[in-house]
Amino acid sequence: MTFAARSFSIRMMEIARDIADARKIVRAARSEGRRITFVPTMGALHLAHVSLMHAAKGGDSFLVVSIFVNPTQFGPNEDFEEYPRDEAHDLTACEQAGVDLVFLPSTDAMYPSDSATTVRVDKLTDTLCGARRPGHFDGVATVVTKLFNIIQPDAAYFGRKDAQQLAVISRMTRDLDMPIEIVGCPTVREEDGLAVSSRNAYLNQQERRQATCLYRSLNKAMNMIESERTDADAIIDAMRRIIDEAGPATVDYISIVDPASMQPVKRIDRGVLVALAVRIGPTRLIDNIEVDPRPVSR
Amino acid sequence: MTFAARSFSIRMMEIARDIADARKIVRAARSEGRRITFVPTMGALHLAHVSLMHAAKGGDSFLVVSIFVNPTQFGPNEDFEEYPRDEAHDLTACEQAGVDLVFLPSTDAMYPSDSATTVRVDKLTDTLCGARRPGHFDGVATVVTKLFNIIQPDAAYFGRKDAQQLAVISRMTRDLDMPIEIVGCPTVREEDGLAVSSRNAYLNQQERRQATCLYRSLNKAMNMIESERTDADAIIDAMRRIIDEAGPATVDYISIVDPASMQPVKRIDRGVLVALAVRIGPTRLIDNIEVDPRPVSR
Repeated sequence: MTFAARSFSIRMMEIARDIADARKIVRAARSEGRRITFVPTMGALHLAHVSLMHAAKGGDSFLVVSIFVNPTQFGPNEDFEEYPRDEAHDLTACEQAGVDLVFLPSTDAMYPSDSATTVRVDKLTDTLCGARRPGHFDGVATVVTKLFNIIQPDAAYFGRKDAQQLAVISRMTRDLDMPIEIVGCPTVREEDGLAVSSRNAYLNQQERRQATCLYRSLNKAMNMIESERTDADAIIDAMRRIIDEAGPATVDYISIVDPASMQPVKRIDRGVLVALAVRIGPTRLIDNIEVDPRPVSR
Repeated sequence: MTFAARSFSIRMMEIARDIADARKIVRAARSEGRRITFVPTMGALHLAHVSLMHAAKGGDSFLVVSIFVNPTQFGPNEDFEEYPRDEAHDLTACEQAGVDLVFLPSTDAMYPSDSATTVRVDKLTDTLCGARRPGHFDGVATVVTKLFNIIQPDAAYFGRKDAQQLAVISRMTRDLDMPIEIVGCPTVREEDGLAVSSRNAYLNQQERRQATCLYRSLNKAMNMIESERTDADAIIDAMRRIIDEAGPATVDYISIVDPASMQPVKRIDRGVLVALAVRIGPTRLIDNIEVDPRPVSR
């Protein structure tokens, strides 16, 4: 009995901390004709990241995950220092998800002291989180541009939980003619509906229970819109009542916006994005849902 | 007598007006293993552009020239409408220079009506032309990023006459991790020293004679610095006298700056960039020279 000659290899996950190393590894994969897919993250990897990795894996794609807690997208009073970091956990999660390359750059490599360049997306960023976190989306757009230029992926995957971020990156990619497909993936939720987020780790037990109010308020909005309620302010009021009844919290915003422009919609006569940001204790949580009004029967 | 079999082909210059067509033609060249070189221009091609093309040609490089009068780098009171345009002349110049692809996008293709993204380089842009032309370098950085992403060249060529532009593009390319070599090429001058520029076409005969005062003042600065004069203000005064004596003109700026940071230098103890912008009649001309002080004898 003979075996046909067949070459195969099991490759280990590669890890690059230098920009030059990352480029070299990706170049080698591309020269083998593999499609390069990319999931940029800030680490603290959880189920939602893993679902992005699964979406990006498949076929002969070479999957790159970056882990970089980007300082320029945090405001001066935000949680850059506290943001959870656990490299060993993250590398295990990547390996289990079949990642081919993890890119772990240092802050110094990403931002030399005389860095002077910013990528800015206007219009989409003057509402929702953009209005509350000045400079946040400049930081996101700039670091994503850098990561895109280092990895040069064919496709990059982002979660829809960060809906405004996805809109900003999609517009930026188109505006700057980056030859990259931007893929938005569904929000991953816990059993009780809470959107999975690295910041959920900040919640104590009571806050964690309370935090379901975000998803419950979004469901309320969906039900009202599907019941042909068209007055955005009335829907927002109903959502706010659910938040208020759940316990002490600060509503950062509750907004109903056009999903393309991120601008407020007063009368709901088309698909909308219902989005909110709520502080429970010191923890700021965001969530959103896209809803289409039911087709009007004539 | 036999001839060795030898395959060769003479290719015609290609012209792409669509972004997708340009990408396709460049991709085909890259798949043949050719190095992609790129000279972005606003057309009105002259000797200085041709010298960039010659620098970018050579070896097996596939030379792309873009011609696009970029509206976003002109201020509201600047010469966007009057800027010289002559496509037939430009295409002939490209063909004679051995260009492989001319990319001629429309303004609508480059800037869809909901464009929202700007690339901004700070620090380097608050002096010289950056201080006098608000938004100019945002427009330059944004369109060059777009063109780089469309053509994806290995190297791009820019003239040193636009020294601040070259510094901005070099910094931007590094800051955003674009895998592109930026090559600065020497200023091309007429016999009497006037830097070749598309805007020289605006000058009448008398203004054209007067315009040599820019180069003469730069030579004066070079002589003073090489004679160990270190007081920047005194050098600037001497330059200004040469401009004033040549006829009626408005000095926009005369500056001596650090070539890396573009920030003013008071005491010349290292290599400097001497730069000026002067209006002769309605025409704004710029020029510059890099000078190293003579090594001090001990």
